[in-house]
Amino acid sequence: MQNTPKVPAADPVLFAELVGEHIADIVARLNDETLERATGVLAHLPFERAVEVLDRPELDRPGELLLELPGTASGGLLAAMSADRAAAALRELDGADRTALLTRLDFETAAGLKQLLAYPPDTAGSLMTTEFVSVPATYTAETTLRHLREVERTRETIYAIHVLEPKTRALLRIVTLRQLIAAEPATPIVEVGPGRAPIVVEPETDREDVARLISIHDLLSVPVLNHRGQVLGIVTVDDVIDAIVAESTEDVQKFGGVEGIAEPYMQITFGRMIRKRAGWLAALFIGEMLTASAMQHFEDELAKAVVLTLFIPLIMSSGGNSGSQATSLLIRALALGQLRLRDWWRVAIREIPTGLTLGAILGAVGMARIAAWQVAGIYDYGPHWPLIALTVGVGLVGIVTFGSLSGSMLPFVLKRLGFDPASASAPFVATLVDVTGLVIYFSVALVILKGTLL
Amino acid sequence: MQNTPKVPAADPVLFAELVGEHIADIVARLNDETLERATGVLAHLPFERAVEVLDRPELDRPGELLLELPGTASGGLLAAMSADRAAAALRELDGADRTALLTRLDFETAAGLKQLLAYPPDTAGSLMTTEFVSVPATYTAETTLRHLREVERTRETIYAIHVLEPKTRALLRIVTLRQLIAAEPATPIVEVGPGRAPIVVEPETDREDVARLISIHDLLSVPVLNHRGQVLGIVTVDDVIDAIVAESTEDVQKFGGVEGIAEPYMQITFGRMIRKRAGWLAALFIGEMLTASAMQHFEDELAKAVVLTLFIPLIMSSGGNSGSQATSLLIRALALGQLRLRDWWRVAIREIPTGLTLGAILGAVGMARIAAWQVAGIYDYGPHWPLIALTVGVGLVGIVTFGSLSGSMLPFVLKRLGFDPASASAPFVATLVDVTGLVIYFSVALVILKGTLL
Repeated sequence: MQNTPKVPAADPVLFAELVGEHIADIVARLNDETLERATGVLAHLPFERAVEVLDRPELDRPGELLLELPGTASGGLLAAMSADRAAAALRELDGADRTALLTRLDFETAAGLKQLLAYPPDTAGSLMTTEFVSVPATYTAETTLRHLREVERTRETIYAIHVLEPKTRALLRIVTLRQLIAAEPATPIVEVGPGRAPIVVEPETDREDVARLISIHDLLSVPVLNHRGQVLGIVTVDDVIDAIVAESTEDVQKFGGVEGIAEPYMQITFGRMIRKRAGWLAALFIGEMLTASAMQHFEDELAKAVVLTLFIPLIMSSGGNSGSQATSLLIRALALGQLRLRDWWRVAIREIPTGLTLGAILGAVGMARIAAWQVAGIYDYGPHWPLIALTVGVGLVGIVTFGSLSGSMLPFVLKRLGFDPASASAPFVATLVDVTGLVIYFSVALVILKGTLL
Repeated sequence: MQNTPKVPAADPVLFAELVGEHIADIVARLNDETLERATGVLAHLPFERAVEVLDRPELDRPGELLLELPGTASGGLLAAMSADRAAAALRELDGADRTALLTRLDFETAAGLKQLLAYPPDTAGSLMTTEFVSVPATYTAETTLRHLREVERTRETIYAIHVLEPKTRALLRIVTLRQLIAAEPATPIVEVGPGRAPIVVEPETDREDVARLISIHDLLSVPVLNHRGQVLGIVTVDDVIDAIVAESTEDVQKFGGVEGIAEPYMQITFGRMIRKRAGWLAALFIGEMLTASAMQHFEDELAKAVVLTLFIPLIMSSGGNSGSQATSLLIRALALGQLRLRDWWRVAIREIPTGLTLGAILGAVGMARIAAWQVAGIYDYGPHWPLIALTVGVGLVGIVTFGSLSGSMLPFVLKRLGFDPASASAPFVATLVDVTGLVIYFSVALVILKGTLL
């Protein structure tokens, strides 16, 4: 029949070390081992423990591990795993391997998993588990508790009990286990707890929005409903923590100018690493080419006053740095919902005085530096050095103000255009500010040095 | 006696709108209102609902709101709030106001809160709530369940039951509510659930480590123990979500070159904004001054070949951008525990070929740009333009490789020196790479253009 491997041998020393450990520690050790040794341990763990290990999102290669196990063992484990983790394991495999693993399952489980795989990644549908507790609205507190004891004792997701309309199976309300315990046994289940409408999401809801809902309402899980109001599954708080951590990784990477990479650093293939980095790098490079054009435009001034070029890197980087500061503040303020799109002007009227003040501080430092080097005789900036110092000082005020302003406005512009404000990366802001920074610097120079150097 | 305000009036329209809403929605609306109007609503909400509102970490100004209420009302609310939120409300107030609020409490509650206030911020001690469920090891499953029903019915933190040694009150094990429900009534509580040692933390444990433990072990709470093994309090999963979100805000801000600012953007005062940004900006500016020194060092070359200056911003920014990409990848890989300090060399031998490839891509684009402009007659780079193009190309390979390498090593260096690797900001990397980038560029130029332009 189908080609499945034999039961692999377990390294006795490794196995003995791991068998009594916390699940999270077993997971960490298995991640460090070769696929073969990890499969060996997994094959010999008690069934329940092996399922717990495979259910951890921190476990690397769950799909490959299952594939290495004999057909009956892997089928049983896959069916016993929580549906969201089983789907994640399958998602890791390519077409042929995925099909091979699915054929080891009974028809119903396989069909359920295939449906989960169809939801786009990073949505509530792809995060949810299909194992949740539901009872008809006709139950009392006592029958519900008995049902939990008898039927649902192994489920980790019993903290929220979903009360369904008996005929349509639409969600009526959610009773928490705490409310159930505290209720009089004879109370109808629909009358337990406060009667507010439950917080729900759709399968297409973005994981970031699910995380925000769970976090602000302090929930342990949130149900995912179809358009008929029936529960498709639930997203639990631990999946959301993983989603928040992944989202935060993506945000830092994007801010650094890399397309989001979810896999661990050492597992990124060379080709993928280049693709994820070269795109933005080349785009920024092409944008930055405008600096060469700007410099070409000012070539006469450059030839007449080479001394001006000495401060170009200093001035340009200050604009980029102040912009990057403003962008990082605004990305988070928008992500946390502290500001809305229509608040852009309130930010602008804060960033202008902030930029002017910061620019004045840097300008003063820069002018002091030029004066000190001149007076101490370290470097001779020529007879017009006070004017050069003034050019640098005034240029810095202009550039830092422009940097702060454009760095703070960029996330709003991206949001307005329908992009994630977190796509505003530090290198993007720097590139944006660099070209304008040069123009500001040379324009200031033209005004101040006209008739002397220029 | 002491000076406390009268009961403020509630705006009837606002109050009618809010009274039936979800707590999270009431919180959001109160945050948008003036202090006076918000206090008015709070004063007239049913007591239990007002406590729920005050218990939300999303509520701004809980301390100020309490201070505006009459003494008896605010004392009652403060005592009914969960201890961690009450401590957070007090932390928001300065000395005199804090004392004023504490005097409205009974002695015991005030003493407990003062102790919580003594733990450093961002530690388990400052995050924990002192309300948790504990039973002596002599209880059975049935007596524990009855205790929960009778004594603990209002607590949101009943999902973990802490079983204590009857005499020393040291923590023996943790039974989850699910395990309790599933247990036979007569089972001694110490025999319910699997017998593994509980996961615990100390009051000084950093919130990031607490978050990691809760996340990898999929816990709903983790107990905070003193050195005698007694439970001081518990940190719950919802507090940890807030901590993860705050940590991620801090990481993005630090990466942008701002010292961490926890409060919402619009609430940062002007002076604080300048202080949080000017420090890093000035430090980077002073570091970047080395570019002026480097340029001064190459002043003869600059005077002879002004055409070289045209590409300085382009080349420097490419080094900074590739460095910023590498840093963002490594910061997250270290934060998520994917890499350890001793893995630095494995990263280095990945980043060198990556940098060479990325540099070659940018170098090719740069050389094509120069050739195209020259051939199309847009700009005349002089008779030696192929050598200039080669200088730019080779310079880019060198600078991008150096940028990738130093950007990836910087988080390791910071970690080695005992700093948070997330302190490696994009502007910091850019500054580091800029100076070296100039030296690389001019050195390449000296080799390639010797005898022609230089």
